[in-house]
Amino acid sequence: MSLPKQVRLVEVGPRDGLQNEKQPISIADKVRLVDDLSAAGLGHIEVGSFVSPKWVPQMAGSAEVFARIAQKPGVSYTALTPNLKGLEAAMAAGVSEVAVFAAASEAFSQKNINCSIDESLARFAPLMEAARENGIRVRGYVSCVLGCPYEGEVDPAQVARVARELFAMGCYEVSLGDTIGTGTPGKTRQLIDIVSRAVPRDKLAGHFHDTYGQALANIYASLLEGICVFDSSVAGLGGCPYAKGASGNVASEDVLYMLDGLGIDTGIDLEALIAAGQRISDVLGRPNGSRVAKARQHRD
Amino acid sequence: MSLPKQVRLVEVGPRDGLQNEKQPISIADKVRLVDDLSAAGLGHIEVGSFVSPKWVPQMAGSAEVFARIAQKPGVSYTALTPNLKGLEAAMAAGVSEVAVFAAASEAFSQKNINCSIDESLARFAPLMEAARENGIRVRGYVSCVLGCPYEGEVDPAQVARVARELFAMGCYEVSLGDTIGTGTPGKTRQLIDIVSRAVPRDKLAGHFHDTYGQALANIYASLLEGICVFDSSVAGLGGCPYAKGASGNVASEDVLYMLDGLGIDTGIDLEALIAAGQRISDVLGRPNGSRVAKARQHRD
Repeated sequence: MSLPKQVRLVEVGPRDGLQNEKQPISIADKVRLVDDLSAAGLGHIEVGSFVSPKWVPQMAGSAEVFARIAQKPGVSYTALTPNLKGLEAAMAAGVSEVAVFAAASEAFSQKNINCSIDESLARFAPLMEAARENGIRVRGYVSCVLGCPYEGEVDPAQVARVARELFAMGCYEVSLGDTIGTGTPGKTRQLIDIVSRAVPRDKLAGHFHDTYGQALANIYASLLEGICVFDSSVAGLGGCPYAKGASGNVASEDVLYMLDGLGIDTGIDLEALIAAGQRISDVLGRPNGSRVAKARQHRD
Repeated sequence: MSLPKQVRLVEVGPRDGLQNEKQPISIADKVRLVDDLSAAGLGHIEVGSFVSPKWVPQMAGSAEVFARIAQKPGVSYTALTPNLKGLEAAMAAGVSEVAVFAAASEAFSQKNINCSIDESLARFAPLMEAARENGIRVRGYVSCVLGCPYEGEVDPAQVARVARELFAMGCYEVSLGDTIGTGTPGKTRQLIDIVSRAVPRDKLAGHFHDTYGQALANIYASLLEGICVFDSSVAGLGGCPYAKGASGNVASEDVLYMLDGLGIDTGIDLEALIAAGQRISDVLGRPNGSRVAKARQHRD
């Protein structure tokens, strides 16, 4: 058993999380959340996205959030950008790292972004070129890596193909997303084994959803496979299990609790992270989605 | 990576689960739950306990439940018995397997059962002798194996000592309970490594609580250590995270989902198990504590 000594957590709560919350949230609350997260020691925070507010009204105001957060040296504040227009808006807001996303399932790609996987990758070309010219780092997401709501099983070779394309286009890291949360540890390890023949393990990240309660087991399995970057969402934002279509993001606190227990360094303070999650849960008026946070509340 | 091909799940919902539920539940509903579980393929069901109804009123009527369940050939229907009197009552009810429990933490033993660990073990001597004479199998539980609410960390050597005592006294299997759910996968593996020097791995079981969301990761870690028996509770009975003092039992459905995904045979049908859990949740009028069950509800 050999585990990484250090893990980087990529906090997706402010973007992936809040994007799926039905409650409106003010710019000030978003700014406070991001600042709470950086103060807790998160070194990588996905702050917002630059997409049409027609599609994702929750992400309107990302530029203002970027302008108002207290940017802490050494922290990556990133944004999701689906296309060149989004990248240009992000750059105008001073963003230095962006993320793009593709699906590993044709049916999901068609239903979600209305084009084939290859078309979606082709659309990134001008974005990648502009990013390269402007020294903007680009992270890639692949969704449906362990199952698709329309196709069911997804061939790991197909995941590897999409991951390789994103890496070849210039993504410095590719995050593998178990969008519907149906992955289990053995399939996770098999996936990493296959994808790592296309993209080196130290350029891969794991993005697990807890819809079926499997996220931490899958993260532990990924650690055993040498993966040392994971996406998670404070307070499980966006993952309310009672809402249809919820993303089911694994709670950052629960991941951190496991990593702390494994003696893996993250630089993040659990108590401060729990406080940040509780604050935003209170703002949203919804139960905290972190089991660790709930257990602490009952213990105290 | 070498995992067991088969796993035995010990269903503790009717006893450990319902014991912690505040809602009263009728004999008929308990009987129905046990019969639903055996019909789903569970081969080992802890049906009730023979303790003073003064202490655990929820367990009054265990004899009647045993008399009314449809005993399926090959299924072990078991009962918790804290002492000889309990064993005698269980035998009178026709029970052929019982369980005893001890703590790995002195403070927990004192506060929970009002005596030292050694005293609690000594009290089992007459029970073990009577069980042996009557051909009754006895299973042992050790609580607080990965943390104690009063002492904090618990020395794995202390767990090994208590497990060895129970095994030496005649318990055919010793179940290691993470009573407060603070265990993480690395500590779980270390614990098994140490305890297995006192009791063979194939005589050990894992009993994990999901209070901090770590149960499935710990079960996966245990599988990697060669453990192939796990306790779990249908619908997470007794584990409502919103109730103080809840036991936090991991949901059988979530464990089974992972085992199915790992290709490990259990003989249990997931859909039938989900139905059994939903029925008892409806009876109790509380949300289903299984994430898999919740995800299925939203999917359908």
